[in-house]
Amino acid sequence: MSSTFGRVYRVTTFGESHCKAVGAVIDGCPPQMPLTEADIQPQLDRRRPGQSAVNTPRQESDTVTILSGTENGITLGTPIGVMVPNRDQRPGDYKAMSDIPRPSHADFTYQMKYGVRASSGGGRSSARETIGRVAAGAIAEKWLRLNYGVEIVAWVSTVGTMDAPDIDSDAITREQVDVTPIRCPHVPTAEKMIAAAAKAKETGDSLGGIVTCVCRKVPVGLGEPVFEKLEARLAQAMLSIPATKGFEIGSGFDGVRLPGSQHNDPFVQKGDRLGTRTNNSGGVQGGISNGEPILFRVSFKPPATISLPQATANFAGEDTTLEAKGRHDPLVANRAVPIVESMAALVLMDAVMLQRARGWATGE
Amino acid sequence: MSSTFGRVYRVTTFGESHCKAVGAVIDGCPPQMPLTEADIQPQLDRRRPGQSAVNTPRQESDTVTILSGTENGITLGTPIGVMVPNRDQRPGDYKAMSDIPRPSHADFTYQMKYGVRASSGGGRSSARETIGRVAAGAIAEKWLRLNYGVEIVAWVSTVGTMDAPDIDSDAITREQVDVTPIRCPHVPTAEKMIAAAAKAKETGDSLGGIVTCVCRKVPVGLGEPVFEKLEARLAQAMLSIPATKGFEIGSGFDGVRLPGSQHNDPFVQKGDRLGTRTNNSGGVQGGISNGEPILFRVSFKPPATISLPQATANFAGEDTTLEAKGRHDPLVANRAVPIVESMAALVLMDAVMLQRARGWATGE
Amino acid sequence: MSSTFGRVYRVTTFGESHCKAVGAVIDGCPPQMPLTEADIQPQLDRRRPGQSAVNTPRQESDTVTILSGTENGITLGTPIGVMVPNRDQRPGDYKAMSDIPRPSHADFTYQMKYGVRASSGGGRSSARETIGRVAAGAIAEKWLRLNYGVEIVAWVSTVGTMDAPDIDSDAITREQVDVTPIRCPHVPTAEKMIAAAAKAKETGDSLGGIVTCVCRKVPVGLGEPVFEKLEARLAQAMLSIPATKGFEIGSGFDGVRLPGSQHNDPFVQKGDRLGTRTNNSGGVQGGISNGEPILFRVSFKPPATISLPQATANFAGEDTTLEAKGRHDPLVANRAVPIVESMAALVLMDAVMLQRARGWATGE
Amino acid sequence: MSSTFGRVYRVTTFGESHCKAVGAVIDGCPPQMPLTEADIQPQLDRRRPGQSAVNTPRQESDTVTILSGTENGITLGTPIGVMVPNRDQRPGDYKAMSDIPRPSHADFTYQMKYGVRASSGGGRSSARETIGRVAAGAIAEKWLRLNYGVEIVAWVSTVGTMDAPDIDSDAITREQVDVTPIRCPHVPTAEKMIAAAAKAKETGDSLGGIVTCVCRKVPVGLGEPVFEKLEARLAQAMLSIPATKGFEIGSGFDGVRLPGSQHNDPFVQKGDRLGTRTNNSGGVQGGISNGEPILFRVSFKPPATISLPQATANFAGEDTTLEAKGRHDPLVANRAVPIVESMAALVLMDAVMLQRARGWATGE
Repeated sequence: MSSTFGRVYRVTTFGESHCKAVGAVIDGCPPQMPLTEADIQPQLDRRRPGQSAVNTPRQESDTVTILSGTENGITLGTPIGVMVPNRDQRPGDYKAMSDIPRPSHADFTYQMKYGVRASSGGGRSSARETIGRVAAGAIAEKWLRLNYGVEIVAWVSTVGTMDAPDIDSDAITREQVDVTPIRCPHVPTAEKMIAAAAKAKETGDSLGGIVTCVCRKVPVGLGEPVFEKLEARLAQAMLSIPATKGFEIGSGFDGVRLPGSQHNDPFVQKGDRLGTRTNNSGGVQGGISNGEPILFRVSFKPPATISLPQATANFAGEDTTLEAKGRHDPLVANRAVPIVESMAALVLMDAVMLQRARGWATGE
Repeated sequence: MSSTFGRVYRVTTFGESHCKAVGAVIDGCPPQMPLTEADIQPQLDRRRPGQSAVNTPRQESDTVTILSGTENGITLGTPIGVMVPNRDQRPGDYKAMSDIPRPSHADFTYQMKYGVRASSGGGRSSARETIGRVAAGAIAEKWLRLNYGVEIVAWVSTVGTMDAPDIDSDAITREQVDVTPIRCPHVPTAEKMIAAAAKAKETGDSLGGIVTCVCRKVPVGLGEPVFEKLEARLAQAMLSIPATKGFEIGSGFDGVRLPGSQHNDPFVQKGDRLGTRTNNSGGVQGGISNGEPILFRVSFKPPATISLPQATANFAGEDTTLEAKGRHDPLVANRAVPIVESMAALVLMDAVMLQRARGWATGE
Repeated sequence: MSSTFGRVYRVTTFGESHCKAVGAVIDGCPPQMPLTEADIQPQLDRRRPGQSAVNTPRQESDTVTILSGTENGITLGTPIGVMVPNRDQRPGDYKAMSDIPRPSHADFTYQMKYGVRASSGGGRSSARETIGRVAAGAIAEKWLRLNYGVEIVAWVSTVGTMDAPDIDSDAITREQVDVTPIRCPHVPTAEKMIAAAAKAKETGDSLGGIVTCVCRKVPVGLGEPVFEKLEARLAQAMLSIPATKGFEIGSGFDGVRLPGSQHNDPFVQKGDRLGTRTNNSGGVQGGISNGEPILFRVSFKPPATISLPQATANFAGEDTTLEAKGRHDPLVANRAVPIVESMAALVLMDAVMLQRARGWATGE
Repeated sequence: MSSTFGRVYRVTTFGESHCKAVGAVIDGCPPQMPLTEADIQPQLDRRRPGQSAVNTPRQESDTVTILSGTENGITLGTPIGVMVPNRDQRPGDYKAMSDIPRPSHADFTYQMKYGVRASSGGGRSSARETIGRVAAGAIAEKWLRLNYGVEIVAWVSTVGTMDAPDIDSDAITREQVDVTPIRCPHVPTAEKMIAAAAKAKETGDSLGGIVTCVCRKVPVGLGEPVFEKLEARLAQAMLSIPATKGFEIGSGFDGVRLPGSQHNDPFVQKGDRLGTRTNNSGGVQGGISNGEPILFRVSFKPPATISLPQATANFAGEDTTLEAKGRHDPLVANRAVPIVESMAALVLMDAVMLQRARGWATGE
């Protein structure tokens, strides 16, 4: 296990799918910031199951409690403990699967790594693990917004084979993203995606998706070469989210098809700062933010747990057919939107604090 | 700066493009392993500039010296210092660029982050920084091979718009990869790539590329959920390499287009272990290796330094045209092959040692 | 804040004196170990306030709940969340002190470091912070005992000017230590200490003390030179406990008075292993355990909060007299006994796991 | 091995007694600071062997080279590699000892931990390992002095049974310390110490000692509760130095003998800041610096390697007599003075940078 993220803004998460509670300890949050549960709950609400007909019907209110680290609604600079109880536990649903590892799920690898696994619902590989991240990210986001005006917005750009047209990443807001429960801000595409999700749910199948994220007004100079370059930390952060298979920043994989003379982002004066005319770099050069929007994409595979019968083998190696019960999500990309935003906030927060440790080059 | 990678096999690198030496300290290498410079030099030779007509003519023999940590050709368990002197320094080449940040290069962000930068050749953002990684990776690779039979092979699968057909990742060897200097094992494609590189060199332009990597015979159970899942560490490792813009594992970005019923990898008995029939997972499930080959891809943008004139702005924000001098690489993907392999080795080595700390589930 | 301890057995604590709960997340505990609250509660009971007439009358049952990381009484290998609610909160007691920093307490430094502090009871500098450590230590201790037979016993050897005669560190047990509430196993001395504590309580004064600790049956080879030598980690661990001012191992400060010829511990065969005739080294040589008992001492200053009037200055720099209210402890050394044991367990656990990562020299 | 120290000012050392070179990589040093070898060499000269008749005659000039991280005498913010070659190698001297582990030396524990050890001179447990620390500390010290006016001065206060009278820690300077080669600033005591050292050298015995250190003008607010309290990090730092057995800060072990009413340090206005009338706290309260001088003591045991014959056992467990050859130091405390200063500087530097990451409470 390695449940701690960050060097100076350090987040440690705990909790499985069906234990008493999930949560996090956020260590290193600067003092004197106003903070109550109301700052955290909205992102948890965007993440929680049962929020719309698109996803799993598992019902969890996911109400967060701050256990420590604040007094009179102000951060003390001490570790902030946050906790969300697990309420809607139905471990019985999972008994049928105990001998058969779900294909492409973590049942097999957890059993092989630990010699034991939570009997139900994926344990630590469950999406419930991300609650602590989202809580920690909401706190980071607030601090980044108050101190630097940072804006982080993610949305669903692809579901299955349906790609949304380009979204204006300079202007997109969370309100626009949340117009539909699928969180694709291009509504005509969103409607198709919702229909596809409904069909997948009905047939017991699942769908993959891509989440795109923009971070605006990020200070120049963030990222710690060489092993903690900003894009390296973002990549780690995103690939630590359940069900992710890919990360690309700026021009990403398609950028390799351009020659350097077309790919390079020429500099141009923008108000009182030097900016770039294009943004193939995705806001980072040499592992350091350059002041342009940070723009990246994360791919989510179709959820492994499906209801359709699957020909597979059990732990004993015997051929069998798995028919999973339980309440499963036909897709996770839309619920992953606040998770992606939160992980981005954790990366940026830590990077800002590390740059402050060194001292801004401008001497601020 | 954050120049240390790994939790128990910890590598710290140092060195810029034009300082006295580059190198690394490898802390945590197990004792009693035979090790001399001859174990390290071959991968450095595959990385070094000037190795073929395809790349930069900068000549560096890149001869490594082990400064500490071994005696009589055996590791002592103490930190292994390795050093490669910088010989072919021509800082004069870079003077013309000092007022004009190269588009898409780290000149601007280093200046903004640190308020100072190496006057020449990219400093710490230079590819020379990777020498320490390759040396450390060669040591990790040897240990992984001796103790677990791990095989790591990377190759160039795309240059510019030229994609190699699928390579048999179960069988590919480094010898096959090295048949051509472009390191694409499909020779007809390699020849086209070489021609394209020659043309780019001639015109002063540059080309992007994709490196694919397979890690075979990786023990089941590696990776530390949640923040150091195996794919998360691989993603961080790869995105820390200069010029990278994307990482994907298994089905990656394309996998989102499949429904779960087609994407899932059914289990099947393989000899004395449970394997999977397909490998969309790319060898990891829930952040933990499952015993199948680990298969991932890394995208490299076209090098930022080109000789073609570029319309851009100088540090003062004035429009200008940059005509870069110096010896530049028309592409880096082929020289990145040993770097990708090395970073993979660092990730796997650390993951194996962390799993040993916990104890293998089988009680070994 | 830096609330995480350990590299592979990592403990993160949270909680102030008067927030909702204190606790810890223990990340990296090996799977498949039987664990319930009953394994943790006894050490918490030895630590809790109000356990005897010697200490503070603050009443806290300090009942621990395991929130995550176990199922059916077995560790899963996932992070173990533990929580103890704060029940007996009387922040009103502290109001009088809000303008006057208590001499030698953390009021002043917390205010200066964070610009804000918990209005009551010391916040994070309170002894309640140690609850998470003790819970985490109890888990580590159980694992060390089950897997290596490690025994850790601490006791009070000095209170004020009263020193206990030498205790047989090879044989001493916790039962013997707990015969009196002052936890000095030499009962005649213990009785004098109890009388002195009662008198200090009555007069509103406080007493310092020294805790001695032995760790027996510690495997040879623990400790990670150079910065995490076993004694260095123990020293850090002990000096992180509230109210500590000194740490010494083996011959400690007195050992400097002996010449090397008398101080050296000659080797001698002991059963099937090489041991030492004397143990001035305190069980460590070159930062690594040598198989002899690890023996160290920790000094605790007299608690800063006393009821006697103190001539001091307020935050505004004006001379004033502080008469502290609240329920204060006349001494902490006896309650610190399980804390010292727990911190020792954390250090040893991490060291064992790090050595397993490397591999025991014997090839086990 | 754990050869990295610090969280944001991170120092990684390498090198054994008789390998090619020893050195360090200093990662995280802020950019734009003037730095050349001349800033580092003086402290290395104070540490080096052969500097006076008091210590070992082993001759090493210990000339440092900066390999990376600076350009034109200015730090770049990139990792600073420093190296000192090992010149005077006489491994032959150690052959006789290869079967007999030196009592109280690291021969036995290194062999047991790693299954192999440097055949000569202590390997990584050698005092030569500290060269990297001293170089890194000299850089930290310069930065602390330039930015905060911090002054760090250590001296020898005890050798064997000879204790110097109290030194004025508010005024003591390195020049005063260096008046005699034994580095005890009370000259009459120093002369007795020198005579005792000469006698020990002549008889082949060795002497312990105590080093006292003061850090003046340390900013208020340094130290990261709870596990990286300032005194906890100092304790770890000091106990990681070879041959140390104890650490105490402020009143230390003697302080336990005072009641709280006498031990507490009352506050008093000092110029424009709140200070304390006494300094039993040793400059830290609650793990955080309070603006008073940080004052601590470190005990060094008599060096284990002596020439006097010792009755002991060999690795096979057979009784034998060891008569060590080689050039040994009759005491290390005086050469440890710059090492103690350097480790203190590393701790303070890291603590300052961590506090900057959070932001000074005053809003600076």
